[in-house]
Amino acid sequence: MLKIGIMGSSGFAGEELIKILLAHPEVKITALAAKIEKTHVSKMYPWANGMLDLDSYDMSAEEVGKITDAVFLALPHKVSMDFTPCLLKQGKKVIDLSADFRIKNQVVLYGLPELYRKDIKDAGLIANPGCYPTSIILGCAPLLKNKIADTDYIICDSKSGVSGAGRTPTQALMFTEIAVNSFRPYKVNFHRHMPEIDQELSSLSGARVEVNFTPHLVPMERGILSTIYLKVAKKINTKEALKMYNDFYKGEYFVRVLEEGVLPDTKNVARSNFCDIGIKAFPERSLVVVMTAIDNLVKGASGQAVQNMNIMYGFEEKLGL
Amino acid sequence: MLKIGIMGSSGFAGEELIKILLAHPEVKITALAAKIEKTHVSKMYPWANGMLDLDSYDMSAEEVGKITDAVFLALPHKVSMDFTPCLLKQGKKVIDLSADFRIKNQVVLYGLPELYRKDIKDAGLIANPGCYPTSIILGCAPLLKNKIADTDYIICDSKSGVSGAGRTPTQALMFTEIAVNSFRPYKVNFHRHMPEIDQELSSLSGARVEVNFTPHLVPMERGILSTIYLKVAKKINTKEALKMYNDFYKGEYFVRVLEEGVLPDTKNVARSNFCDIGIKAFPERSLVVVMTAIDNLVKGASGQAVQNMNIMYGFEEKLGL
Amino acid sequence: MLKIGIMGSSGFAGEELIKILLAHPEVKITALAAKIEKTHVSKMYPWANGMLDLDSYDMSAEEVGKITDAVFLALPHKVSMDFTPCLLKQGKKVIDLSADFRIKNQVVLYGLPELYRKDIKDAGLIANPGCYPTSIILGCAPLLKNKIADTDYIICDSKSGVSGAGRTPTQALMFTEIAVNSFRPYKVNFHRHMPEIDQELSSLSGARVEVNFTPHLVPMERGILSTIYLKVAKKINTKEALKMYNDFYKGEYFVRVLEEGVLPDTKNVARSNFCDIGIKAFPERSLVVVMTAIDNLVKGASGQAVQNMNIMYGFEEKLGL
Amino acid sequence: MLKIGIMGSSGFAGEELIKILLAHPEVKITALAAKIEKTHVSKMYPWANGMLDLDSYDMSAEEVGKITDAVFLALPHKVSMDFTPCLLKQGKKVIDLSADFRIKNQVVLYGLPELYRKDIKDAGLIANPGCYPTSIILGCAPLLKNKIADTDYIICDSKSGVSGAGRTPTQALMFTEIAVNSFRPYKVNFHRHMPEIDQELSSLSGARVEVNFTPHLVPMERGILSTIYLKVAKKINTKEALKMYNDFYKGEYFVRVLEEGVLPDTKNVARSNFCDIGIKAFPERSLVVVMTAIDNLVKGASGQAVQNMNIMYGFEEKLGL
Repeated sequence: MLKIGIMGSSGFAGEELIKILLAHPEVKITALAAKIEKTHVSKMYPWANGMLDLDSYDMSAEEVGKITDAVFLALPHKVSMDFTPCLLKQGKKVIDLSADFRIKNQVVLYGLPELYRKDIKDAGLIANPGCYPTSIILGCAPLLKNKIADTDYIICDSKSGVSGAGRTPTQALMFTEIAVNSFRPYKVNFHRHMPEIDQELSSLSGARVEVNFTPHLVPMERGILSTIYLKVAKKINTKEALKMYNDFYKGEYFVRVLEEGVLPDTKNVARSNFCDIGIKAFPERSLVVVMTAIDNLVKGASGQAVQNMNIMYGFEEKLGL
Repeated sequence: MLKIGIMGSSGFAGEELIKILLAHPEVKITALAAKIEKTHVSKMYPWANGMLDLDSYDMSAEEVGKITDAVFLALPHKVSMDFTPCLLKQGKKVIDLSADFRIKNQVVLYGLPELYRKDIKDAGLIANPGCYPTSIILGCAPLLKNKIADTDYIICDSKSGVSGAGRTPTQALMFTEIAVNSFRPYKVNFHRHMPEIDQELSSLSGARVEVNFTPHLVPMERGILSTIYLKVAKKINTKEALKMYNDFYKGEYFVRVLEEGVLPDTKNVARSNFCDIGIKAFPERSLVVVMTAIDNLVKGASGQAVQNMNIMYGFEEKLGL
Repeated sequence: MLKIGIMGSSGFAGEELIKILLAHPEVKITALAAKIEKTHVSKMYPWANGMLDLDSYDMSAEEVGKITDAVFLALPHKVSMDFTPCLLKQGKKVIDLSADFRIKNQVVLYGLPELYRKDIKDAGLIANPGCYPTSIILGCAPLLKNKIADTDYIICDSKSGVSGAGRTPTQALMFTEIAVNSFRPYKVNFHRHMPEIDQELSSLSGARVEVNFTPHLVPMERGILSTIYLKVAKKINTKEALKMYNDFYKGEYFVRVLEEGVLPDTKNVARSNFCDIGIKAFPERSLVVVMTAIDNLVKGASGQAVQNMNIMYGFEEKLGL
Repeated sequence: MLKIGIMGSSGFAGEELIKILLAHPEVKITALAAKIEKTHVSKMYPWANGMLDLDSYDMSAEEVGKITDAVFLALPHKVSMDFTPCLLKQGKKVIDLSADFRIKNQVVLYGLPELYRKDIKDAGLIANPGCYPTSIILGCAPLLKNKIADTDYIICDSKSGVSGAGRTPTQALMFTEIAVNSFRPYKVNFHRHMPEIDQELSSLSGARVEVNFTPHLVPMERGILSTIYLKVAKKINTKEALKMYNDFYKGEYFVRVLEEGVLPDTKNVARSNFCDIGIKAFPERSLVVVMTAIDNLVKGASGQAVQNMNIMYGFEEKLGL
């Protein structure tokens, strides 16, 4: 049994990791760190009552390293940077769910398995992709890799459930503010996920991409749906586009390219690690509309992190997912 | 035009008062006090943009009194007590939505119009009833007044929308905590509304009543439904019970006794000042089940406050409601 | 008092008309037609219990005409066509909320008051705009009228609450299908509102416009938010764009151009006739993102219909709204 | 691998069975029957796309029996009766989720494992308990078995998520009817689950029990919370009551008696087979309030059915749950 530590166990990604890993047959959670007073997991998460007997408290990276084989960092941004070196020095494998290491350097691998599986196998530190980036990169990859899409004017209109905004109580995130017919855009072309998206789309296409990105808040707990508008130089129809996507994602269990006429719905991927992709092409408009759905907390965070762990340790990739 | 001040304009009751009073043809809001930095109402409540041109800020009772004829206090509990004397001294009429004055003394009137209309007319200070108490008192009054119900073992199982918990951000009230299939009881026989309920039911029945009261939190914005179980000495059937209720509430516009077989639904009273009452009697069980529905922010707070104002100023009782 | 008939009283638009008109001081509802067995309005809509004493049943246009001055048609598409001639022959004014007359001919006026107010005054028959079209046309009008936007590649990514899908029970519209983290696109570039949008945008711009339109279903009752991406030839910044919108909508009570940095939220227009417009321009990208929010049942249907009625009868335009 | 058939795969219980059994390591779903035209499971349930390759169609009991070892019947009430004899004759084990066999006869076992585990082991046909009954029987059992509670006047105020109402589309169950602040009682003392509750409580207490049962509909997908009011002859306090419950449910993994001061919340048991029980006793009122929370589709239906299967086949009782 692999001994697992979760640093940042009090946030949504941390909670989702606990949920997923409790059902994983090859691992055992042995450390739960969080910047809180010592609290039993059954008090933090009453759903876990009887399922896990562990306290969560403010542990140092060293302390966590001592009693674990691998560590997930589900920390606020800018904190992972501090903890990672110590864990790596102890020889622990680290999967970081924050954005701290996502902007590429030569050491850290961007952990999107469908694109970088081979390298993940041997990595010691993985930068687990963000939720919006996962939904957009998986949606654009085949068209960009095949140099079909105009890279100048990609429009990504994304919609996220409220858990994407984190767990810190603010008035804007109260039930009474959102459950009253509230749907709204925020941070138009200003979201901190944009550099990560641009980096990966540029890398895929070989051209410098700067997406137009409008995130929106949907009155639901979880899920991201990205509607992506791509201009295409070569006129292609839906069948051709679908073939390209099916070829690109051949053998990928977690990417489901939907058949013609079927569109994704966030509910179909809720609590799962799937990314559903629907395509509609309009040759007469030189337009391809790609719609992707993921669970922001699973394929967009903790599920993908476990997928990475499975690859790193040679488990079946979908084990526990 | 009656000049109106609202002290506590940043809470739910304050917001609802603004909403209601903006549509009231005989009044004009001239003061909005709140313990906040000066903020234009259109910033606090973007829905009010273009409808009211007024700043809200930390005004003293004296200041508010100077520019108003009547003042609604929608303040945190224990604050009204401080502000009221000053307003009364200035000769202003005061309607207090907090619990501060609800436990009876000789000066302050309990502002439940269906029971105390006559006295409200001439009152200078009204203690506006709480939301749970309104739903329970209106539901029990006819049976208690007619000495039909056993006063020893009244069970009030109440369910409230989340706005009943107020506007202060806490983790328990975040969208992500509640919109995930969350329904739960709280403060079983421990809620601060209980003395108020006991006082009024005792007064109605002439006996000492101590209700068994279990409030629950419903994953919806607004509405209270109280299911009240009353043992009855005399066996009565549904028709007889309904007749008693219809007689008792004859001419009351805001109390709708539903016909046999029809049960209340909070959605039917949402954003209105109605109280819907459904009755099912089980003579063979010596049981009457009374179900009442109100909007906790309207008939349970701000609507009832405006109803009181209408009575105090001789306006048509349902004006603006 | 103007005597009003509503044909199609059992749908959402019909219900919303009843709600609005009950609070309108200059009208009286005298006929409620619907393809149902005779039902008292308090049975159809328990919220209206005590507020209106009228039966709804299958009335002919002739019958309705006899007891009304003006008639709202909130009928399924293709039915209005049959009823309208008879009503007009009886000299009744008709406001049709269906799409039947929206595609322009010389006789029927497209009832978007902010664009065609003058002609509405004297019209006998008004084609009340659709919900999506209202949100998009109001959002694009200033840029198109001023010939700033590229008319070739307008992207309208719209999101609607579930009431937009109508009241006929289907499995896809059940609570249990939608309230489970469901957000989804539908009818990509295939919605029946598109000809209406294209017609009006073409008319505004003087060029042939074919929008790219993706509607989505949001798990909320009401509200539409349209995120519109416009390429602009002339680089303009947010301030300049806002000035253009403020100039265009000067004096328009129901259009609220939000100040810089403020974005619309459907909750701010819920149950109101406002259209909120937020703008962000990106000169370096030659892009203007326009975001509009309306209530699909009010400014997108029944509220706008009453606004038209107010204009036709010389009432204050915002009376009852 | 045990070969499993599900008859009634198109309802909520059937869907939940598929979900649970797909994650169960010892079984394989080999037959999905439903009164529909042949449909691939990925079309019925897009979430299952890629997870199970099977068609669902109108299969006879004989046909299902031929290719399975055990069969779950998640059928409309009154249909199980027809299918069961044929399956039993083929030597298949049958777990029936309908109410058809719940009213006791000598042949069929009431499959509430916490009460009847021993007999379940050897049963060929199990009547799986209803959702409301599970929440109430588990909540009352210790007090009734210990003869502490007055059996004359037990009040069960239950609240259920909307999935409890089934999947057939009706107007009352549409999203737009429920997601508008709707909370409502229904079938007061008239629900078809009552005989089952009375039977089991009578059996536990040795006295004839007729509960007062008021079900309510909560605007959420899943979950039942029952608030049960029991008069007690002997005054007991919360600690004593908790001890009694902890003793009674000692070793029961799926029943979690919450510690003093902690109350259940349906969200804590959502998608799990747990039943959470919170207790508050009021000795001065001779009252014990028991609050239980289950997921109506899991412990209240399909999860409990799988728990029964695990017992019948000697698997670990919580396997796959």
